[in-house]
Amino acid sequence: MGQERSEEKSECVSLSPMREAVPAPPECERVCVFGTGDLGRSLGLRLLQAGYGVVFGSRRPHSSSLLLHGAQVLGHAAAAQSALLIFIAVQREHYDFLVPLANQLKGKVLVDVSNNLRKNQYPEANAEYLQSLVPGAEVVKGFNTLSAWSLQNGPSDANRQVYICGDSVEAKQVVMAVATKLGLSALDQGSLSVARELEDFPLQLFPQWRLPLRIAIGLSAAFFFYLLIRDIIYAYATQGEDISFRIMVSLANQVCPIVSLIMLSLCYLPGVLASFLQLYRGTKYRRFPNWLDSWMLCRKQLGLLSLGFAFLHVLYTLILPIRSVEHTLKCTHTHTHTQNKTTTFDTTTAWRGDSYLSLGILGFGLYVLLGITSLPSVSNVLSWREFSFVQSKLGHLTLLLCTAHTYLYGWNRFLSSSIYKWYTPPGYMLCLVLPSVVLLLKLLLITPCVDRTITRIRQGWERGADQRNPKDSQPLIP
Amino acid sequence: MGQERSEEKSECVSLSPMREAVPAPPECERVCVFGTGDLGRSLGLRLLQAGYGVVFGSRRPHSSSLLLHGAQVLGHAAAAQSALLIFIAVQREHYDFLVPLANQLKGKVLVDVSNNLRKNQYPEANAEYLQSLVPGAEVVKGFNTLSAWSLQNGPSDANRQVYICGDSVEAKQVVMAVATKLGLSALDQGSLSVARELEDFPLQLFPQWRLPLRIAIGLSAAFFFYLLIRDIIYAYATQGEDISFRIMVSLANQVCPIVSLIMLSLCYLPGVLASFLQLYRGTKYRRFPNWLDSWMLCRKQLGLLSLGFAFLHVLYTLILPIRSVEHTLKCTHTHTHTQNKTTTFDTTTAWRGDSYLSLGILGFGLYVLLGITSLPSVSNVLSWREFSFVQSKLGHLTLLLCTAHTYLYGWNRFLSSSIYKWYTPPGYMLCLVLPSVVLLLKLLLITPCVDRTITRIRQGWERGADQRNPKDSQPLIP
Amino acid sequence: MGQERSEEKSECVSLSPMREAVPAPPECERVCVFGTGDLGRSLGLRLLQAGYGVVFGSRRPHSSSLLLHGAQVLGHAAAAQSALLIFIAVQREHYDFLVPLANQLKGKVLVDVSNNLRKNQYPEANAEYLQSLVPGAEVVKGFNTLSAWSLQNGPSDANRQVYICGDSVEAKQVVMAVATKLGLSALDQGSLSVARELEDFPLQLFPQWRLPLRIAIGLSAAFFFYLLIRDIIYAYATQGEDISFRIMVSLANQVCPIVSLIMLSLCYLPGVLASFLQLYRGTKYRRFPNWLDSWMLCRKQLGLLSLGFAFLHVLYTLILPIRSVEHTLKCTHTHTHTQNKTTTFDTTTAWRGDSYLSLGILGFGLYVLLGITSLPSVSNVLSWREFSFVQSKLGHLTLLLCTAHTYLYGWNRFLSSSIYKWYTPPGYMLCLVLPSVVLLLKLLLITPCVDRTITRIRQGWERGADQRNPKDSQPLIP
Repeated sequence: MGQERSEEKSECVSLSPMREAVPAPPECERVCVFGTGDLGRSLGLRLLQAGYGVVFGSRRPHSSSLLLHGAQVLGHAAAAQSALLIFIAVQREHYDFLVPLANQLKGKVLVDVSNNLRKNQYPEANAEYLQSLVPGAEVVKGFNTLSAWSLQNGPSDANRQVYICGDSVEAKQVVMAVATKLGLSALDQGSLSVARELEDFPLQLFPQWRLPLRIAIGLSAAFFFYLLIRDIIYAYATQGEDISFRIMVSLANQVCPIVSLIMLSLCYLPGVLASFLQLYRGTKYRRFPNWLDSWMLCRKQLGLLSLGFAFLHVLYTLILPIRSVEHTLKCTHTHTHTQNKTTTFDTTTAWRGDSYLSLGILGFGLYVLLGITSLPSVSNVLSWREFSFVQSKLGHLTLLLCTAHTYLYGWNRFLSSSIYKWYTPPGYMLCLVLPSVVLLLKLLLITPCVDRTITRIRQGWERGADQRNPKDSQPLIP
Repeated sequence: MGQERSEEKSECVSLSPMREAVPAPPECERVCVFGTGDLGRSLGLRLLQAGYGVVFGSRRPHSSSLLLHGAQVLGHAAAAQSALLIFIAVQREHYDFLVPLANQLKGKVLVDVSNNLRKNQYPEANAEYLQSLVPGAEVVKGFNTLSAWSLQNGPSDANRQVYICGDSVEAKQVVMAVATKLGLSALDQGSLSVARELEDFPLQLFPQWRLPLRIAIGLSAAFFFYLLIRDIIYAYATQGEDISFRIMVSLANQVCPIVSLIMLSLCYLPGVLASFLQLYRGTKYRRFPNWLDSWMLCRKQLGLLSLGFAFLHVLYTLILPIRSVEHTLKCTHTHTHTQNKTTTFDTTTAWRGDSYLSLGILGFGLYVLLGITSLPSVSNVLSWREFSFVQSKLGHLTLLLCTAHTYLYGWNRFLSSSIYKWYTPPGYMLCLVLPSVVLLLKLLLITPCVDRTITRIRQGWERGADQRNPKDSQPLIP
Repeated sequence: MGQERSEEKSECVSLSPMREAVPAPPECERVCVFGTGDLGRSLGLRLLQAGYGVVFGSRRPHSSSLLLHGAQVLGHAAAAQSALLIFIAVQREHYDFLVPLANQLKGKVLVDVSNNLRKNQYPEANAEYLQSLVPGAEVVKGFNTLSAWSLQNGPSDANRQVYICGDSVEAKQVVMAVATKLGLSALDQGSLSVARELEDFPLQLFPQWRLPLRIAIGLSAAFFFYLLIRDIIYAYATQGEDISFRIMVSLANQVCPIVSLIMLSLCYLPGVLASFLQLYRGTKYRRFPNWLDSWMLCRKQLGLLSLGFAFLHVLYTLILPIRSVEHTLKCTHTHTHTQNKTTTFDTTTAWRGDSYLSLGILGFGLYVLLGITSLPSVSNVLSWREFSFVQSKLGHLTLLLCTAHTYLYGWNRFLSSSIYKWYTPPGYMLCLVLPSVVLLLKLLLITPCVDRTITRIRQGWERGADQRNPKDSQPLIP
């Protein structure tokens, strides 16, 4: 019997074409759109293409501005009556025109597709406000993440995903069915009280990028002033020479690599910490502390920012020989860049200099590779094993190369006291601390004994728990 | 009766498992494919995977070339009778073999998936021709945008979207249902008369790139000859020295940045003009003139081409120090690149030189960022606010940086008359005009008073219109 | 009357959830998940969002670790009875806990979503093992390609595609329906015997990259040692000078371009060979030999690796002027890079040197363009004609430019015997062989007469076959 029912149901999923055959499709196949603005028009077009009959509700049904071939244009009341499903593509300020239509809207499904111009513009969500105006109707919030633009060009990849919410399950199902026919996949986010979140979504401006950006800016500023004092001001105070122009290139070219390296290690530190936490707890089934969770979630952003700085570092380095000043004071770039003024040629220096450059190049090459694989369309075609291989193994290799690159830059100068101007270490030394720590911890983790335990934990093993319990089969993506 | 049939038909197209359980699925669960070429085979494979019974119609049913496990191969007549839906994966030249099958094809749905080799190859569309040959059948045009290749590798993102058209709504619905089951989303484009457009689609070669490419080529040619005369020919005519070799690098490195900057400003000019037009009209509900519309539509392409030229400019600049000629005549690159032969070092020059380089680098960095965010998979995951922030705010910042970069390149040489060879201004001066204008206009637009008006207009406000009218809720993407 | 029925039906399509409105939804609308691990929880969440009632089967129903709002948690037996469809998100080792539940599981659809940690970990596939444990149930393998991670973040683009297999068509259809509702598109891969392949899929590590990577590594190693002997060891043996440091940059910068150019030609060779094979056979309907097929299939990977090496070559070249060693022995880079120590300036050398650089830059520019268009999200929005234009026409142009670049590098030194150290030709000569061959063959192919034949063959023409036979309408993507 249950079979029977589900059977029947599944049958009718796809059919109902022949209804469209008859000139005027019945209510259920007709959809009404209020509002003839960009979004309204795009919605109408899309609905027509998907094979729906579309009726526009307009204050001036004979407006010339709306020329959507195949769509009807009626007054609001008439339009409301003609369809079960009504899209309200109207600005919240104008909702009150719906109040007089209360009777025609009774029992109808109203889809509130509106967006606001800034967060918390109004006390309650537009959809809730709409519901309060038309208590008789069933309001569903949704589609507001789609721009008129993406509707016209056909939804692709990411924005094929639309979120809806509402208090009536039937109403939501009606909307879901339409969404599916439009080539979208709708996800039910719950009751109408969620509407506010959905309305805020299109207003968000890179939320996951906030923290990483703040870190990047903070680090840049800190190191900028630190180096400003150590190099420019120091030179001015001691030898009284004005080399302030260095700020533009030489200094920038010291800040970029430093910030880049630190952020790269910040991108791999949480993963290492998480592993140690799991080791310590002996299970993977306990939530990480929130700070670690949120840190883990912005690793991608940290990595990409760090790549950006590395990119700038490369450009700054490559233009060094072009700099006009260099023609006048030769020392400039050799000084700021590679410390050897040795006139007599010795192989060690050559080896060091070239390895230094070579490691930098290889490191940057891998860096770019990581960046490319984190493009949505690329990471999507990777199996999770491939993804974790690239992002974890190659990622740590990149960190290793870049750290070695920096060590070689420092070379033996760590010893010479002359570089500790005003008893402060040069920037590249400070930036070496974090990556070295991360690499050491990682080294610990990949030692056979530790590694074995981690792997077992990741497979669901729990210290001192009986092993006959079901666990999930999917290893975590590191 | 027709009702009855279509009813039944559509019913079984929809998923109804138990029917497939029985060894030989009924007509409606079986799909027939005429033509055993690449596309035919790929279609068959795909249909099998989606759980359909597949019957191939072939002139030589026992051909060895077709080894698709699970598919039947019958003669055309037999195959035609076995299924309701028939894919015609055959070249138009061979359609006439269908004429004798008229009886078996009566009432069947024929899907014409054919493509031509060039536009307007034939008087009428293949699908219309097919319909004329088999009037009894219901012809639907579609799937022709899918290549055999993409069918085999499973459709992803963009080519998940297929377009169909035909005169019978039932037939189109049947095809749509199949498309959905294949993991595609079909969009109804209307009657069979649209077929010609659908057939031309796969033949198009970067239609939106035509105009931008023409502009790019035109500009490059113009400036190439202009600079050829000013530099090489002038030098030959006056001092009689042959520096023609400069064409390869120095000249190219002047043309690239010039064209790049001009095209970047061309990419932001239409947006600015549109805003002023809206300001002047006091409404956003009137169509823009066509030239402006089409200009707006190719902004992305303009920007990407401009990025390409910028990329070449960077490479050309970076190899300057490598140039072997440089070893012999030192002046070369300093001359073509940064004009200062000053042997005495002064800070101002240093500042200028370094800021010039630094601005260029930062500008290029942002440039690349803009390029990355315009990758389909990236722009799709951006909310419209994020997208507009990147493309509008960061875009104008890029333009600002690059313009400043060029101004610093010129520096004080604008005054010295020596550079006006034959009374013509150097290239970089000419290319500064347009970006300066765009930036000035933009500056005007973001002044509080103007900005407020624009925003209200974008929200649907109309000068001298009553405000109680519904408007759309979605701000335009600038 | 027909109206009536369909009406009703369509209601239950969209409105079926009205059943969900009532507290306890019927079996068919409820889905059960065994296993409360990451994947189990993510699946549950996703199912809830799609509007299903979710029941978790757990050994400790009151476990605090599972806090999924809206989901029921029952003991295994109770959970099993509550739903028709049961996801087994449990590790294979723990399957045996299902044996005692045989009665409750009779006739249920079990979805085995498990993955293994390495290939061939167990004699038979997990799904087959599960079936053997619970013969009464209908086991379907699937969803194992989805990571918990991608389930939570909503499936996008590529991983919207899920593969399933099983012996019961009804069971597969039930699972397919659920998949569709989750916004996934499921492809039926056949009987349960395919399960092993599906289980191996997430474990694969860049299978199509294996061959190209091996080739790249092999070539690099070979040329590295060849050049090591010719340059470093030769110099040491003859003049006794130690220039081993050159390994890091100079040598690397010779290996990279060589490997890059060879791999680029390897990427276009198979296409040319295929054309000649088709010419020779006079038909396109015969399979290519397997070695050629598999070669054709890894062209993209060959091209991208070659781009990687080109990228490194560019970086290595650009840092040449920075190298500190250069300050001490000037000759270094001019020697390893461009052979002219001419102190007297002559235009020819200048022309050669600059064209050499310019061609390299343009070649690399096109290279990058090819790389970008092979990004999934970009290639997906290209019509097949656009794709083939870029990958074939522009591709061969790139090869031409890079080859010319290398020829200009060699210039007239081909003649001077001094470079044939120990009677061995320099590396760049060796690497010129293959590209030259490819370009010559391609040149042959595009001569009008040959081209015409090829085109006709590609359109399905067969030498000495009657032309009234159906052929497929879609030209092959070259």
